[in-house]
Formats: sequence, C-alpha cells, structure tokens
Amino acid sequence: MSEIVKPSILPGFMELLPKDQIQFNRIKEVIRQTYEEFGFLPLDTPLLEKSEVLLAKGQGETEKQVYRFEKGSADISMRFDLTVPLARYVAQHYSELNFPFRRYHIAKVYRGERNQRGRYREFYQCDIDTIGENSLDIINDAEIPAVIYNLFSRLDIGDFTIRINNRKVLKGFFESLGIEDSQSVLRIVDKVEKIGVENVVKEITELGISNEAANSIMDFISVKGTNSEKIQQLKDLGIQNEIFTEGLGEIEQVFEYLKAFQVPEKNTNFDLTIARGLDYYTGTVYETMLNAHPEIGSICSGGRYDDLAGFYTKQKLPGVGISIGLTRLFFQLKDAGIIKDEENTLSDVLIIPFDGFVNDAISLATELRKSGVKVFLYTEKAKLGKKMKYADGLSIPYTIMVGEDEVKNQKFMFKDMKSGNQEELSIEDIVSKFNK
Amino acid sequence: MSEIVKPSILPGFMELLPKDQIQFNRIKEVIRQTYEEFGFLPLDTPLLEKSEVLLAKGQGETEKQVYRFEKGSADISMRFDLTVPLARYVAQHYSELNFPFRRYHIAKVYRGERNQRGRYREFYQCDIDTIGENSLDIINDAEIPAVIYNLFSRLDIGDFTIRINNRKVLKGFFESLGIEDSQSVLRIVDKVEKIGVENVVKEITELGISNEAANSIMDFISVKGTNSEKIQQLKDLGIQNEIFTEGLGEIEQVFEYLKAFQVPEKNTNFDLTIARGLDYYTGTVYETMLNAHPEIGSICSGGRYDDLAGFYTKQKLPGVGISIGLTRLFFQLKDAGIIKDEENTLSDVLIIPFDGFVNDAISLATELRKSGVKVFLYTEKAKLGKKMKYADGLSIPYTIMVGEDEVKNQKFMFKDMKSGNQEELSIEDIVSKFNK
Repeated sequence: MSEIVKPSILPGFMELLPKDQIQFNRIKEVIRQTYEEFGFLPLDTPLLEKSEVLLAKGQGETEKQVYRFEKGSADISMRFDLTVPLARYVAQHYSELNFPFRRYHIAKVYRGERNQRGRYREFYQCDIDTIGENSLDIINDAEIPAVIYNLFSRLDIGDFTIRINNRKVLKGFFESLGIEDSQSVLRIVDKVEKIGVENVVKEITELGISNEAANSIMDFISVKGTNSEKIQQLKDLGIQNEIFTEGLGEIEQVFEYLKAFQVPEKNTNFDLTIARGLDYYTGTVYETMLNAHPEIGSICSGGRYDDLAGFYTKQKLPGVGISIGLTRLFFQLKDAGIIKDEENTLSDVLIIPFDGFVNDAISLATELRKSGVKVFLYTEKAKLGKKMKYADGLSIPYTIMVGEDEVKNQKFMFKDMKSGNQEELSIEDIVSKFNK
Repeated sequence: MSEIVKPSILPGFMELLPKDQIQFNRIKEVIRQTYEEFGFLPLDTPLLEKSEVLLAKGQGETEKQVYRFEKGSADISMRFDLTVPLARYVAQHYSELNFPFRRYHIAKVYRGERNQRGRYREFYQCDIDTIGENSLDIINDAEIPAVIYNLFSRLDIGDFTIRINNRKVLKGFFESLGIEDSQSVLRIVDKVEKIGVENVVKEITELGISNEAANSIMDFISVKGTNSEKIQQLKDLGIQNEIFTEGLGEIEQVFEYLKAFQVPEKNTNFDLTIARGLDYYTGTVYETMLNAHPEIGSICSGGRYDDLAGFYTKQKLPGVGISIGLTRLFFQLKDAGIIKDEENTLSDVLIIPFDGFVNDAISLATELRKSGVKVFLYTEKAKLGKKMKYADGLSIPYTIMVGEDEVKNQKFMFKDMKSGNQEELSIEDIVSKFNK
C-alpha cells in the first residue's frame, strides 16, 4: 500500500459527527416542512453557474469571495447565495412558471471569506421568496412573518420576536425633513443597536444634516407602545409625504393580516430602528431575535424588493422573502445551550443477537420494521461488554437482546437505556409501545 | 438599468421545473427514509476537499474529470463521488465513531465528463455503507439487499431483481482452472450482457487462456435454477479451492439471511455473470434491474470491499455498500414512462379569496393549517379567470373559493379539480377530509 495521506478538510469548512448531524437535519427538516406547508415549491439549481451570468450584477465585496475557476473553455463560479440563482431561474423559465411564484431553496452556498470563528466558507441557506408578475399584493408581506412564527414555534428554541419595519416609512419621513440621501441615513440608523444613539446622531450630522433633524430622527425611531399604538402615533404626526403615507398604510395592513394569520402580538414588533443594510429592500423588512439571546443577532431576515431579476429580464418581478443562515445558527444555538445533546431518534430500538441467534434477530427486526418500528440491528460477533458499549455509543433509546430463552418464549427483554429499566415483552407489546 | 444578460446554465448541468422537482424530491425522500429506518446515520461532508487528500489515490480516468482549482494558496477539488469523502471522514474521525459505522449520504457530486445525453456533470448519488473495524460480519452483506428490496418496493416503479454474486466464487473458480489474472477475466465476464457469450469467449482466449477453459467459464456462469439449486450445483462441482469455498459459503449465508429479512426469492437472483468492473470489490456484489426495462441497466449497484481507507489510515476498514445515481435514474424513469406527471401533492388545497375577503381567506387558511391541512393561499387581486388558470397551473387537487356567502354561512365550496365535482363543506368537514 502506498504512503498514507493525513485526512483533513479545508480551513473554514466544517462537518459534523453523526449525533450533531441528526440534530442539524432535524432543524433543517422542520424548516423544509414549514416552508412546504405554506405552499412554497422546492427548487434545486446547479451549484456551478456561468460566471458571466452569476456575476452579471457587480457583487462588490462579495465578488472577491466567489470561488471562480476555469474548466476547458468555461468560466465557472460557485453560487454565493440563493437569490441570484433564483433571479436567473425565474427569468430563464419565466413563461413556464405560475405567478405569484413561491419557492423555497435549502442548500449550501460558498464564500471564500477570511477564516474566522463563526464564519464558514460553506454554509446552508434556507430561503423562501414569493415573486409577483408586475405587482405583488401586500398580503404576501404578512404571510412571511406567519411562516417565521410557525417555524420558530415548532423549533422550540425559546421566545422570539419578529421585528417588522417598512423602509418607505423611514424614507418618506427623511424626505419630509428635507433629507435627500435617505439611503445613507438608513444605513446609519440600522446600526443603532450596535453603536448606540449618540454615535448614530454623530454619524448622521456628519452627512451634513442638522442636529435638530438628527434628533427628530432619533425621536421618530424611538416611538413607544403596542404595534397599533405606534402606527397611530405616526399617523398623528400628520406628515405630508406620499412615500411615508404609502409605507404606513402597508405596515398597517401587514399587522392587520397578521391577526388573521393568528401570529400573537407578543411575537411581533413594529420596530422603526431596523432598516436592513442592503439597498436591495424597498418596503417591508424583517429581523427575528431570540428574546433571551440578543447577542446572537437576527436569526432570520429579509424583506420586500421591487425587482428581482432586472439583470436578466425586462419583466418586472417584485418579491418578498427571507433567509436563514442555518450553519451559523446551528453553532450559535449549540453554544448558547439552546440545543442539547439528545438521543439518536433516528432509530427506535437496537437489536443485539447473542451469538448463534442472528437469524432470529433478523426475523424480529423484520417483523418490527413491517409494523413501522425503526430498528438498528447489531451485526458483529463480539463479547457482551463490547455490544453494550456500542449500544451506549449510539444513544438509541431502547435495546432488545435476542437469545435462546427469548426465541423459545417469544418474549424479549426490552431495556430502556436511560433509566436502565427492563421488561419482558412480546412482539405485539413492542410494536404497540412505538405506535401509541 | 444596465444591460441584460441572457439567463442560462452551464452545459451538462440541469435543473427542474417545480412539478418535476416535487417528483424528484419524493423519490429522494423515500430513499432517505428507508436508509434511516435501517439505522444508517446521516453524513454531510464538505463539497470541496483538499486536492492532495481527495486525490491521494490515483483516480485514473476520473481524475481528468475532477473540477480542480486554486483559491489563495489552497489547491481545491470538488468531490466526484461519496466514497472517497467517506474514507477520509472515517479515517479522520476514527476514534469518535462506533463500529460497525453505518452511514447514508445523499448529495451532489461533480464530474466534468464529455457532454452527452444521459450524462450529467452534476448529479445526485444516494449511498449507504457499513464499515467494520478489522472485520465485518457477512450479515451486513444480506442487509444491503434487504434495504434495496424495501426501497424499490416503496418507490413502486415495477418488478425488479437484485442480482447478487460473490467475486470470490469467480476468482476461486478461475484459479482452479489455473488462471492467474482473474481480474482481467472478471472484467470481461462482466460484459457478457453487453457483448454476448461469443465475444466474451473470444476476449478471454485473447488473454492466452485455452478455448476449453473459456468454455468451462461460460458453462460455469450460465448455471441454471433457483438460488439454492445454483449453490448446490456449484458445491457438486467439488472444486478444491479455498477462495471458491469461502465465497460459496458467503453467498449461501447471504441467501439464508435474506429469508429472515423476508426478501422474496423472486426479487433476488444469484447471478454468476455479474462481477462489477471495479477491482475495488472483493466479495459480494450487487446490481438491481427493472424486469420490464433491462435497457436502463443497473439502477442500484455496489458490493463488499476489503479496505475502505488504506490511503488515509493503517487501520483496516472493510465495508459493504451501494450507490444509486439518482439524477440519471430520474430521467430514465421519466423516459420509460414509469413516473408520470402527478398532482402537486405538497399542498392539499388552494384557497382563493374573492376580492374583499382576504382576511377571511387568511383566517380559514390558518384554521385549516392548525389542523394539519397544507394550504396554498392565493394572494393577488385578479379576475376570476386568471385565478382559475393559476389553480390549474399549480395542479393542487382541491380548491376553495372564499366570498360573502361562504363567510356568512361558514360553508365553503370545495372543488375537486380533477373531477370538477363541488360540495359545500364546513371547516370541520374539510379537516376530516384530509385527516382520514
């Protein structure tokens, strides 16, 4: 045999041991199911794209991070998000899709970022987007938080708040103050949680905006009360600006629809401080916070945009969507102790044959499987101690030993691995234990 | 807006429209569930690997097809199968795994093959492998066909036959004829279905093997009867060769265990003509054929190997596994008419509000969702004709319109989109329709 190469993976990449992988997949599966139950259709685009297509829109900082290479005469790039491939897909298959087009996409994306803790060069994104043809009703902006609410309730990772804002409300208000460069102000306002009120005021005035106006902005974004109280207070300001009025009307509708979606008031917050840095968003924007873990930051973000695919088609395609960065979130939840080591729930029971009773163990396993019990069958000849160590290592909740007495009496010693309790059960008893 | 770039994907890559993607995912999901129910643990390794590690073993023809590139100082390759990453993973995490280690891996792999019909440069493989530490009991070689049997029974794609052979039986027999280069003969024998008996004899004699021996080989591999009859006939040959005897003993045990696994005799065939081209396999080998579609070739293949990870560790790791090339299989099944266009089964029902009844439609959708009904909500203001066209396009089996009468009476017109039948139902009636 040739020389041995030390097995290792690239820096910035990660892989999990089976127990963690089971937990990771469980979360991914809840996300998938929730997305599907709300009618989002699955999409699975090629991971490699033509560079000229994928990078049609200059990607700024991101572009440097793209894994790009040549093979033969092809200039190839790996996707760095799921939004650009969606834009390409919708433009390319436009005539074959039904609009509004709702799709989910759960897949890995690639960014050759500087290697640092909490940053991965390969990570899962879990996206949904609803794309309209020319227009898209505001109801879709309310459906997104309904999906978020259902998803994180099911994941059972603690209380959470979906922060909702509308960039038109901010933009219109800034305009009413005579501020033209509302994008720059939005970008500064978005940092208020990170850098504090004073620094925000300072940065705003550095744009050449008066202290008075800067303070008005801070008063505006700090409005207090329930969601509807905040909306009422903004109405009472009597601001005469079309964009402001439009945005306020949209946010009012979103919160009205959210009641019909039965999303509890306590899980939502009309929060004027969030703006989402990207210029991409044009209306409703979302962030989602775990109440007990603000340090994690937003675990699910997104918003409304005017035009998905302007680089690929003249057809106007407005949309609204969110993204979950699952790989990072998983490690954050682990670090915060929110997801703990669990039993291996992929298998219900481990069957261990005593030597010489392999055929009987297979028969038992097969009978149980026919009744829907998920059986892991131990297959090796080994000492009892080794077999029990294996059972412990796998963390399968129950174990059945199969030997002479068991086969003769058709009664099996059924052991709860956590409590250590044992009971003698027939095949029917075992099946009914799992099917209840 | 800047210039428009024509949206397209790289040649040799593919993506599906939502209806096909739903079907594709349904098949992928059945495979995943079956693998999990037999206790195989999920694995998800990085798609990019260090070239020096991934290509440690010379990959011959495959190596030319590998997508390999540099980024910064890293020499990076995309995985071309799921076996090499498994070998690397098991060697790297050896001390943290429990053996036998069973894993499944369903993921895309990449090969820059010549572009031709039925060949994809990006395709899904769906693999299971059971890896032992130093040794691995023959029962594992029987469990694999049990998984295959359960999997393809559930997929419901017609009658199929799992062909099983053992390379030791062939190798030992060739040795008993005085043939030293059994690998070369194995490779020729493996082609008998493609090139016919005459050509096989011709190619064998071209190796310098006598006509008599070549004919003996053909007689040997053409042995007829049930699986146990074939085994008995081979025993009766009285061949004095250790490897032959060992292989025959193994195959006998596999078929004995298969009875306990309740795999029907008619779904298996001890077939001496299959050898699997790869030198990699050392014992049991498998192919799976659709009885009505031999032209598709094997839809699931694999076998037993002596040493998984010799390039990464001195630890001996024998294993047994199979692989399904799902992307190609999907198109073959479509082409053969085995999977047909179906309804969109991701959603149970499409709710369409008449204009002005959006809130009521959301409330109905939310009530139904709370009872587990999968609801797709139509969100746009549009003419009725456009709404109905949308319903047809999505192929969701049932539709509910929500308007004034419906809301007043809390009775909803429930339409079967296939038959066109309608009935007036309460929310409870609708829920019980789906939960039965």
